[in-house]
Amino acid sequence: MARTPAATALQSIRWDGGLEDGWLRILDQSRLPASIRYLTLRDLDGVVAAIERQSVRGAPAVAIAGAYGVVLHLVPRAAALGKRSAALAKHLDQAVERLSRLRATPALLARALERQRACYARHAGHLTALEMCARLLMEAKRIHREDEEQCARIADHGAPLLSDGVLTIGNSGALATGGIGTALGCVLRAHQLGRKLRVFVGETRPHLQGARLTCSELARAGVPVALLCDGAIAALMADGQVKAAIVAADRIAANGDCAAQVGAYQLAVLAKHHGIPFYMAAPAAAYDPSIAEGARIPIDTCDPDDVRRVRSCLVAPADVAVWSPGWDITPARLITALITDRGVIRAPSAAKLAQALGGEPAPAG
Amino acid sequence: MARTPAATALQSIRWDGGLEDGWLRILDQSRLPASIRYLTLRDLDGVVAAIERQSVRGAPAVAIAGAYGVVLHLVPRAAALGKRSAALAKHLDQAVERLSRLRATPALLARALERQRACYARHAGHLTALEMCARLLMEAKRIHREDEEQCARIADHGAPLLSDGVLTIGNSGALATGGIGTALGCVLRAHQLGRKLRVFVGETRPHLQGARLTCSELARAGVPVALLCDGAIAALMADGQVKAAIVAADRIAANGDCAAQVGAYQLAVLAKHHGIPFYMAAPAAAYDPSIAEGARIPIDTCDPDDVRRVRSCLVAPADVAVWSPGWDITPARLITALITDRGVIRAPSAAKLAQALGGEPAPAG
Repeated sequence: MARTPAATALQSIRWDGGLEDGWLRILDQSRLPASIRYLTLRDLDGVVAAIERQSVRGAPAVAIAGAYGVVLHLVPRAAALGKRSAALAKHLDQAVERLSRLRATPALLARALERQRACYARHAGHLTALEMCARLLMEAKRIHREDEEQCARIADHGAPLLSDGVLTIGNSGALATGGIGTALGCVLRAHQLGRKLRVFVGETRPHLQGARLTCSELARAGVPVALLCDGAIAALMADGQVKAAIVAADRIAANGDCAAQVGAYQLAVLAKHHGIPFYMAAPAAAYDPSIAEGARIPIDTCDPDDVRRVRSCLVAPADVAVWSPGWDITPARLITALITDRGVIRAPSAAKLAQALGGEPAPAG
Repeated sequence: MARTPAATALQSIRWDGGLEDGWLRILDQSRLPASIRYLTLRDLDGVVAAIERQSVRGAPAVAIAGAYGVVLHLVPRAAALGKRSAALAKHLDQAVERLSRLRATPALLARALERQRACYARHAGHLTALEMCARLLMEAKRIHREDEEQCARIADHGAPLLSDGVLTIGNSGALATGGIGTALGCVLRAHQLGRKLRVFVGETRPHLQGARLTCSELARAGVPVALLCDGAIAALMADGQVKAAIVAADRIAANGDCAAQVGAYQLAVLAKHHGIPFYMAAPAAAYDPSIAEGARIPIDTCDPDDVRRVRSCLVAPADVAVWSPGWDITPARLITALITDRGVIRAPSAAKLAQALGGEPAPAG
């Protein structure tokens, strides 16, 4: 039998067991590539800590973890409530509030939590508390499965755009999502389709997702990969080795400006200077027409110690001031095309985005 | 008494003792900022190893170390030779050959070794072997002192160009030179002159000279400093916080293209995109009119393990391929001005450089 990518890919997140005896199984990404360890999360505290420690990261994976985290918080409280499912509301609010404080920049976590609230509202009044939890678990699994399907469609749409030398930063593959990935999914699909690719990966400080995670994913899939320092990207482009750059977008403003892993904007500027197409990939749910333009997207910062240190090693004066945004904003004019599960949007504009992504997704059950 | 910068600056390199009982004292920069340790180098092997391990780094400091390294190699061999100073020639060749193999990109090491050869040639035939060594030690000290003076002039010329937010990468201060520094010297001098500066420092992977060395030098001098990841530079520029970028150049081709610390070219592209002046600083000896343009400058590479690892910590798959140039080339058209000890050359061109830097320096004694 052929060794399929599915057989070698690492799965970042999985629900195990049923409703009352279930738990969330997370691949601890903070330890990669040194060791492959799984965490068992049985309550909201565990989910919150795993997101804070970057054991689970990547906007789609964090959104999925958040949706399950709501369930883990409500189930043990539901048994005692019997038919009084309305009493779950305050626990739902608690869980949503704690989780939504973890990430302000990416849209998907907030979207997943909204979906859990909407699911609760749809069923309020005619279910026992435990039945309500079952619906919320179904909704979390649906969010998870939809992400997998959206990744597959993004990969299908993006793969034809890639050949020869491709540059990416961060990690937007299976580890970051519930499926094959977004930007990295396009790369992996292009490889599966037999396109001759060589992939260059910026190490992506401060968290080194490029070095630690993306290089591992590509090597496991058999894609030729070369790692480089973030400061060497322009030199590589000047050397003629990069034919396209692609990264994941985490929130898309109405005008097409995108928030993404810090470094994405820099990559876009460098691609433009060298005449290289710059692609951003995201599920349609990252589109947030309530935000007019990129400058209004809130930017989460990293812990300054993540910059002063690499892993446990201090690499700067312990008390030096640090400027450490976790995300940056790429203006729409620098984006050659947005690759979404609903298709490729070239030279994105407010009108094109509203048309392609503006419709609500099909109502959930 | 006022606490002067000189009292707090770290000195990278010093000759201690006389000719036959002398040694080279090196601040081991590979251990900074964790610990301040000095190495005593008594022979060429020690000098070569110190350069290979980056215990001494920065093109001017490496050139000075190389000039002294020649002396350390010849002195113990000279005592036995008496008046046969011509027999020193093969040992001189040995030392020059070993040292010049260590760095191909920066011009200054080769220039210092040429000066030691020229010093030997000037005095061949009328000195004992030990007297010849004394002349070579004088020449090494002259190279060292001239570098200190050139740094001071570079700093004087560059300081008026800087105010408000200044961005630099790498390390081009006292640690990298025999004086106040080149690019960082301009920054330090501007601070000494009372200009209100805030300095942003890219951490500068793979060797993290920005984080480890430049942040320390600036903090010791009392300059407000903030560290950032190399991938966040464009975001900082878009945020309006950077009014000028400045880095050291290590070799200047006839047409003004400059080789520098990898990341300098990227910084130049980003500065251009954001309409920010981009300065490069170097002693006139970095000018190499024998090389027509940047594409012909040889580029040394880093050890791939320097990218796969940060200090001792593995941060990527152990066998991943790495693209790791140690230097990159900034085309003259992206350089707002070259700051040299002979003055500021705006919009550098072949004609301007030949006029400003083309004359030979005053003949040495």
